[in-house]
Amino acid sequence: MGESSLRIALAQLNVWVGDIEGNARQMMEAAATARDRDHADIVAFPEMALLGYPPDDLLLRRGLPDAIESALALLTEQLTGITAVVGYPEYAGEDIYNAAAVISDGERVAHYRKQCLPNYGVFDERRHYRSGDAPCVFELGKRRIGVTICEDIWEQGPAAQAKAAGAEVLINLNASPFHVEKQGEREGLLAQRAKANDLAICYVNCVGGQDELVFDGRSCAVDRSGQLTLRAPAFESGVFCVDTQAQSGTQGTPSIVAEESDEALIYDALVRATRDYVDRNGFPGALIGASGGIDSALAMAIAADALGGDRVWAVSMPSRYTADISNVDAADQAERMGVHYDELPIEDGFSALLNTLAPLFGDREPDTAEENLQSRIRGALLMSLSNKFGHVVLATGNKSEMAVGYATLYGDMCGGFAPLKDVYKTWVYRLAKFRNTRGDVIPERVITRPPSAELRDDQADTDTLPEYDVLDPIIEAYVEDGESIEGICARGFAEDDVRQVAGLIRRNEYKRRQAAPGPKVTRRAFGRDRRYPITAVYGDL
Amino acid sequence: MGESSLRIALAQLNVWVGDIEGNARQMMEAAATARDRDHADIVAFPEMALLGYPPDDLLLRRGLPDAIESALALLTEQLTGITAVVGYPEYAGEDIYNAAAVISDGERVAHYRKQCLPNYGVFDERRHYRSGDAPCVFELGKRRIGVTICEDIWEQGPAAQAKAAGAEVLINLNASPFHVEKQGEREGLLAQRAKANDLAICYVNCVGGQDELVFDGRSCAVDRSGQLTLRAPAFESGVFCVDTQAQSGTQGTPSIVAEESDEALIYDALVRATRDYVDRNGFPGALIGASGGIDSALAMAIAADALGGDRVWAVSMPSRYTADISNVDAADQAERMGVHYDELPIEDGFSALLNTLAPLFGDREPDTAEENLQSRIRGALLMSLSNKFGHVVLATGNKSEMAVGYATLYGDMCGGFAPLKDVYKTWVYRLAKFRNTRGDVIPERVITRPPSAELRDDQADTDTLPEYDVLDPIIEAYVEDGESIEGICARGFAEDDVRQVAGLIRRNEYKRRQAAPGPKVTRRAFGRDRRYPITAVYGDL
Repeated sequence: MGESSLRIALAQLNVWVGDIEGNARQMMEAAATARDRDHADIVAFPEMALLGYPPDDLLLRRGLPDAIESALALLTEQLTGITAVVGYPEYAGEDIYNAAAVISDGERVAHYRKQCLPNYGVFDERRHYRSGDAPCVFELGKRRIGVTICEDIWEQGPAAQAKAAGAEVLINLNASPFHVEKQGEREGLLAQRAKANDLAICYVNCVGGQDELVFDGRSCAVDRSGQLTLRAPAFESGVFCVDTQAQSGTQGTPSIVAEESDEALIYDALVRATRDYVDRNGFPGALIGASGGIDSALAMAIAADALGGDRVWAVSMPSRYTADISNVDAADQAERMGVHYDELPIEDGFSALLNTLAPLFGDREPDTAEENLQSRIRGALLMSLSNKFGHVVLATGNKSEMAVGYATLYGDMCGGFAPLKDVYKTWVYRLAKFRNTRGDVIPERVITRPPSAELRDDQADTDTLPEYDVLDPIIEAYVEDGESIEGICARGFAEDDVRQVAGLIRRNEYKRRQAAPGPKVTRRAFGRDRRYPITAVYGDL
Repeated sequence: MGESSLRIALAQLNVWVGDIEGNARQMMEAAATARDRDHADIVAFPEMALLGYPPDDLLLRRGLPDAIESALALLTEQLTGITAVVGYPEYAGEDIYNAAAVISDGERVAHYRKQCLPNYGVFDERRHYRSGDAPCVFELGKRRIGVTICEDIWEQGPAAQAKAAGAEVLINLNASPFHVEKQGEREGLLAQRAKANDLAICYVNCVGGQDELVFDGRSCAVDRSGQLTLRAPAFESGVFCVDTQAQSGTQGTPSIVAEESDEALIYDALVRATRDYVDRNGFPGALIGASGGIDSALAMAIAADALGGDRVWAVSMPSRYTADISNVDAADQAERMGVHYDELPIEDGFSALLNTLAPLFGDREPDTAEENLQSRIRGALLMSLSNKFGHVVLATGNKSEMAVGYATLYGDMCGGFAPLKDVYKTWVYRLAKFRNTRGDVIPERVITRPPSAELRDDQADTDTLPEYDVLDPIIEAYVEDGESIEGICARGFAEDDVRQVAGLIRRNEYKRRQAAPGPKVTRRAFGRDRRYPITAVYGDL
């Protein structure tokens, strides 16, 4: 290391919640790469990398403090020839801190406790952690390096405090989940903090799917003037380096991966999230009910891209109401993607159960009861295959359906994971078209035919719902912005539509409460990101 | 009001989340009772009574601040002839406080912001609220009355601060959910705070079921010496008064409802929770799959006690594996309780779906796939009746099953509400026996026969699980205490049993994530009270 030059490696890892030993192993491998391949002076790991994020109440297990301490001791002993900044949960008596240890030459030379604890949206950090109050600045050669953690950089205090304590470069450890347009916010903020404090900033983030969240990586760095000097790729793990000089805070050629389109980012987010859910939970593959519609077509593409076609099993379950082209198109796509494909007609089961119910149904008109029964038979068949062969069922519902309840609880909502849960219907089309730009896998007719649940004759989604290009922005205003009925109408939507949609969203909270988890990709996803009571009256608010 | 005497009415109301107008109406009626019937000087309402508790992200709706302000203005105008202490959410710019307004003669004369915000267990208050930092003491006649809110009394600061600001009596507003042994903790704490600060304390709590929580009321008061002077009944709304003298902090005859047994309290909690869920969500009644087993028998009793037998519909769905006595016992109980009863044999549907699956199942041995299919057909039949007739399905699974996954997702887990979700199997028996002491409704044989899922020949729960009197304490140690494997073994359980049970609990997180809500009655319930990742590795911790 030259007197004024410093090479910092950002270890953009895909750690796994709870797998302390495995995470420590990944960290040692990344440190070796940073040291031996990249000749880095420092390797920085993501927030909470030793335990994974978010650990939630796993933090409260009695056995955890000892396991963390052992792993940290091992890392301290074995991480040699490089200085490492390690995110971990620090247990101090009754208190837990979201902490970072700086390890160098077999010793913990510095130590930081996160000061700003997010407790909104998907975050619950004040449930477990106490806030730190002190800066952390350590010396390496002649350089002084500050450390902060994630939310700390979103407020003004901690960076200024590190600067005041002498930091020339700030390393910020993150576990920052993806949503669309996030990277622009991050890089804008980093530039602002860097300029305001005359401080180069290195931002290291994790990657990978973790239940309702998917981390996108895109670790990055800015120099003292706020100029971007590094942007690592999205959704891929790796070790990425940045050089900082005492003068400018940067040197050499910036290494900046181009930003992809929103379609590409969301698609890749769904693939990453699905792969990690399926693999980490130990499933041999994934089952999909393939209806010939756009949702299951997109889900099949995502699953095949995530797992390989040979680990995906698409099952078409036609009824008396299913158009022939539905089966043809589903089979066509399965063949194009190397996906296993079977057909299980539901007519016999449907007739048998209708007969069973006949004495109680009497001469009542057919309604959603008969429609949902078809969907529930399909769910039961998929779950039977899952129980027999071990594949996880992927639910194919999208965010528009989740919002207004246009899905059958215990029917098409069956599944361990729901890749499209936070994807509006209008975006399902955009992503399907996007996927075909990487290779033509979804038959054109699936994209162009009008959407229908095919649970009765001549059914179309628009029989009961506004067109999706009206529905989706109303949902977005109500769910993502928390906008009132009045406020949404003021955005130019018809009051009848707004009241219908808002009413459906309210009344279907009970369905969402029992929905499979799926990855957040918008500003406000259903699930841990948006917590509403089921039993509640709040009409116009 | 005499110079030194003060009568405080505690309005133990069953408010409804989001129903601001309805809650305000209830408050005005209670205030009129307190004033006209009881000649009280002050009426105190529960924490957040104007909006209901917990409102969760409903607090973030854009239309809410105006609605709250209007309702508070109306209360201020109309609550005359008595001083009222009103819990509500206070919007102050970007901040929200969990607040209390003191209203007297058409004016808001004092104001308090909750200082201690619980953010553990079922509570998420730091997600929404900022902390206050000032005491609130108002004068009435010659007396000085302090106000605090819920968690404030569980810490030492706020009561001492109110005393220092001159309070002689402290009114503490609560939305304190029930769990077993809670009242002892509350009254012990109040006695301690009262003595430590030489301060009489009035504790007003709400009642009623709200999704996963049930509030038990049991509002109470202690005098300056810590002596209990009032205990209101559990799970019933009403207005209850306490007199305090300047000297002793109390006068007149103490009015103390006797504490009931834990069995009675839990049973009444489940009845209250079930009634409020069904009624407030607008269901005409409840459907129960009646298997002849102890769980569905207890659930039927709870539902009938909550709603009246004529609003409960029990459906037996026998298969080739169902013992005749199962149907007989279920029908017997239904008749005793005036519950509608029907039988829908599942054999035809089961055969039809097995035939449909046969080409894919091939010659594989029967396993849980065939067992779960029976359960899922039952779920689909109940949901079909629910869709056709509007009754909500009650899931009958207990906490022991929820813990180890001894329940079929989309099968017997179907339902909008799960009354027994937080009741251990050993407690299911205790509660069934207890219920029969109030009238013999559950056939003796249901209580005495060995438990079986009846999904294959000669099946017994103990084929795959330890006896329930071993299983339940292991679950309790692991789930409620967060105890490690080692720690549970040290309590005297066999390591094999402990590892089996802990492994099952870990692996079934995905099922619980899709389970219906049910009322918390233990120290640590599944659901919002215990938040674990699905995708996680944490073997021995």
